[in-house]
Amino acid sequence: MSSLILVRHGQSQWNLENRFTGWWDVDLTEKGVEEASAAGALLAEKGMLPTRAFTSLQTRAIRTLHLALDACGRSWIPETKDWRLNERHYGGLTGLNKAETAAKHGEDQVKIWRRSFDTPPPPLEAGSTFDLSGDPRYAGIAVPATESLKDTIARALPYYESAILPALTAGETVIVSAHGNSLRALVKHLSGISDADITGLEIPTGQPIVYDFDDAMQPGERHYLKDR
Amino acid sequence: MSSLILVRHGQSQWNLENRFTGWWDVDLTEKGVEEASAAGALLAEKGMLPTRAFTSLQTRAIRTLHLALDACGRSWIPETKDWRLNERHYGGLTGLNKAETAAKHGEDQVKIWRRSFDTPPPPLEAGSTFDLSGDPRYAGIAVPATESLKDTIARALPYYESAILPALTAGETVIVSAHGNSLRALVKHLSGISDADITGLEIPTGQPIVYDFDDAMQPGERHYLKDR
Repeated sequence: MSSLILVRHGQSQWNLENRFTGWWDVDLTEKGVEEASAAGALLAEKGMLPTRAFTSLQTRAIRTLHLALDACGRSWIPETKDWRLNERHYGGLTGLNKAETAAKHGEDQVKIWRRSFDTPPPPLEAGSTFDLSGDPRYAGIAVPATESLKDTIARALPYYESAILPALTAGETVIVSAHGNSLRALVKHLSGISDADITGLEIPTGQPIVYDFDDAMQPGERHYLKDR
Repeated sequence: MSSLILVRHGQSQWNLENRFTGWWDVDLTEKGVEEASAAGALLAEKGMLPTRAFTSLQTRAIRTLHLALDACGRSWIPETKDWRLNERHYGGLTGLNKAETAAKHGEDQVKIWRRSFDTPPPPLEAGSTFDLSGDPRYAGIAVPATESLKDTIARALPYYESAILPALTAGETVIVSAHGNSLRALVKHLSGISDADITGLEIPTGQPIVYDFDDAMQPGERHYLKDR
């Protein structure tokens, strides 16, 4: 039987400052580092030891993965990084905190962007500090100017199906260290959550979520590893 | 033009205690952590930024790689871990320090094992604390009971040729984070060093060594990045 472990990266500096982060590469806080190590310690405690890892191209998810694997003695497993596991791109909201965003666009509009399934925020302006289209990390990738959750799912889910699912089918215990919205994409698919409901589903940081698969590769109930 | 960067892992606890380590999985000391980060800072300072990474299955090399990549902002590059980059297996000497080894086997014999090209130390006894044949990290791999430097070269060099050289040929800037003897295997090949001379060549910890390749994929002179 194979299992899929989903871990949202620990607290980042911009989580703490309540800023829209998206693709901007913000590092973990000390608390985030602790959350990541604690996630790994829990994997060891529960005997849920990954044999295969996937993560995004973003430092906070990569470091979370490495800290968690260090803490459960699994730093040696194969790991693949892919931009399709990146966080949702927040477009022109990138870098703004909640108060700044509300002042600029109004509370109601912000709520729409945060909670709508398919309405993307305004695109990031060309030449913005936060424009990553020239970053060598994204060479050969059409960096989006903004994304709705629907857009995020449209790249994360095919990646799950083409890269992660085959590892599960091969019997691996797979860990995916990623972001609130790229993980929502997987949870929506695996738990059959509607477009309307998925935007309200919170994925806590550093808290491993597990799906066990049966022999027909059907995922069981989603559960927190800590409750196991 | 492509470049190959070789980094020997920073100081480990058993480097410090002067024990034969080989395949035993010993972590970095605080000094080792600093050496690894300094190696990454040097890569950044010299603009020698890796685009592709290879390392062994051993924690000290993996952590050195991650610390170095973090320090130069390259934690997102693809990375491959392979046992063929592991340290030479020291067989029955594993875990012994210099004084213990001399007391058990005599000074002269120890010098032969350390400096001979093709004489392996006695094999690790079955059931030894240091027997890794049941470690899941080496599932499917015939864990050696001991290795000479020649044996180490016989698995490290084919790996270089089949996995690392193609990345160099594709124009990548490749970093290899590995061990004294697996790196000797590569340096022997790339710098054309004799069997007799290679055993005396010391590879310092945390000090990036660079080979630049010409268009015909011939390596230039080996040099320390710090001297560039």
